[in-house]
Amino acid sequence: MLAARVGKQRVLLVERPLPRVPEGWALIRVRLAGICNTDLEILRGYHNFHGTLGHEFVGQVAECGGTGAVRNRAERRWLGRRVAGEINITCRWLGKPHCGFCRRGMTTHCSRRRVLGILGHDGAFAEYLTLPIGNLHIVPDGIPDECAVFTEPLAAACRILEQVPAARNTPVAVLGDGKLGQLIARVLAASGARVTLFGRHREKLQLAAGRGVSTSLLRPGTGRPGSRVPGRFPMVVDATGSPQGIQQAVWLTEPGGTLVVKSTFHGAARLETWPIVVDEMTLVGSRCGPFERALELLGSRRVDPRPLISRVYSLRAAAAAIRAARSPGVLKILLDPRG
Amino acid sequence: MLAARVGKQRVLLVERPLPRVPEGWALIRVRLAGICNTDLEILRGYHNFHGTLGHEFVGQVAECGGTGAVRNRAERRWLGRRVAGEINITCRWLGKPHCGFCRRGMTTHCSRRRVLGILGHDGAFAEYLTLPIGNLHIVPDGIPDECAVFTEPLAAACRILEQVPAARNTPVAVLGDGKLGQLIARVLAASGARVTLFGRHREKLQLAAGRGVSTSLLRPGTGRPGSRVPGRFPMVVDATGSPQGIQQAVWLTEPGGTLVVKSTFHGAARLETWPIVVDEMTLVGSRCGPFERALELLGSRRVDPRPLISRVYSLRAAAAAIRAARSPGVLKILLDPRG
Repeated sequence: MLAARVGKQRVLLVERPLPRVPEGWALIRVRLAGICNTDLEILRGYHNFHGTLGHEFVGQVAECGGTGAVRNRAERRWLGRRVAGEINITCRWLGKPHCGFCRRGMTTHCSRRRVLGILGHDGAFAEYLTLPIGNLHIVPDGIPDECAVFTEPLAAACRILEQVPAARNTPVAVLGDGKLGQLIARVLAASGARVTLFGRHREKLQLAAGRGVSTSLLRPGTGRPGSRVPGRFPMVVDATGSPQGIQQAVWLTEPGGTLVVKSTFHGAARLETWPIVVDEMTLVGSRCGPFERALELLGSRRVDPRPLISRVYSLRAAAAAIRAARSPGVLKILLDPRG
Repeated sequence: MLAARVGKQRVLLVERPLPRVPEGWALIRVRLAGICNTDLEILRGYHNFHGTLGHEFVGQVAECGGTGAVRNRAERRWLGRRVAGEINITCRWLGKPHCGFCRRGMTTHCSRRRVLGILGHDGAFAEYLTLPIGNLHIVPDGIPDECAVFTEPLAAACRILEQVPAARNTPVAVLGDGKLGQLIARVLAASGARVTLFGRHREKLQLAAGRGVSTSLLRPGTGRPGSRVPGRFPMVVDATGSPQGIQQAVWLTEPGGTLVVKSTFHGAARLETWPIVVDEMTLVGSRCGPFERALELLGSRRVDPRPLISRVYSLRAAAAAIRAARSPGVLKILLDPRG
């Protein structure tokens, strides 16, 4: 099968054997995969990952692992089903005794975890991938592939409401008009928050405007102490993916406020931390979220991510797709391994 | 009266007129004042403060403001009483309509606040200071001046338990064996937490050892990803006062854990923020705390801060005292304006 792998900070298209499917796992034929900023950061050295990239996908179960009755039972339920998949592969699926985090139900923090296309497990920029069946969620028929491929990042956006339930009905600043910021703005607005999306690109901001979301240009000085406009917010989400963004997010958080940090980038930020202390802010790191909630939002069309798709590339053109994903003004780039 | 003021990043000893005492305020004769790291940071330019330094003190009420019956009533209750004083002077005492934070009871975050010796109000490195009577707490007779002068920083340590009640019975790493770290370790241990105090000075660590506190040397690589010792903690407090400290504190916080940030320093830290996101940590900025609780801990002798006193200087020797406070190996330096 064809796979787009990380090698020397470049993406390399290679022919690979089909992966082995252990009992309890499924082989999934990828229908569409999405390029995420984390993929671009991995190509810059983040996590030192070597393997097949990609963790956002919608696919179809092509085979279940195991033998005899076990395999037959699994295939009766799963074969041919369209699925999205959670990306953390935990002790339970690795045949290990449960770690302290798994025992406490914090499975996304499993200390032995492998992560699809990020850590120790080949990802979705390929014709096929494998995941534990327990990680799979069936995609309802009403949700087209172009929406279902957003399930993973949309779940990450929904994670914020699990961590900060007060987000409902609160004025919230979302920093970053990129892919994740756009989804977060929509999820929070759908939950009743009064969202202002800050970004550097007028045309990207326009995509979000109107759906219960106000927009505002993010300039280098926005939020800097002493500037009275745009004021400060009781809740701020940093989804800029940039070292400067997190500083601006701190500036925009009001005393006693909550700053949700979503940006992961390779390297260090220069950050004035004293406002966190003096203004007694709470910073909440936020990663993977509930797939059920994301599929609900997609199914009910309360969130339609399709306007965020900039272009669909064939998997064969993965290198060009990565270049496109890095270009300014571009939002979601999808890969189609079937094309 | 004599006062030690900030001028051009130096401390200058000057003769000043006695301050005016408005109605509702008290004139307080300072008995002892403590030098805090924030004072040293202010001398490096933090907060751009110009005035009399100092916000940790114990003093004696020498006069109450106002005229006639108002003044007589106040003086009957307060004159001659030994007091510690909260440092935030809010709308209520500035004759202003209450700001949004004061209305919500978040008075330490009053948007118009002046802060004793830090922001817009002369501080405690002087023979006399003024504060609103509402800021004062009577020091019980059983608490000697040498303990009472620690009320403000001890309250700041107690603030942590208001913000993170789960600290009780939890393994907690406190980073920084300086004045504030020492108090925090004692307060958390007194509340039942299993405290490990990390610091760079064997002799300072020894002061804390034994009182329910384990100690550990903090080396530049301590906590760095990949190092298995000393492990990671569900709760960490950064009281290092240094940009490197906060990075080590992040490294030492386990997934899902809480990092309380106490360090304020002038300038920016270089901080890898991705572990905050990937490990979904919560960072909690923490500033001023409950004086009642601090006085309780001092009165019951559950915390005795006197071993932390390195030396007492006369106010006349303020410049030498500041130099001493900056020296390695030194803990609390006190100023006695009566000497």
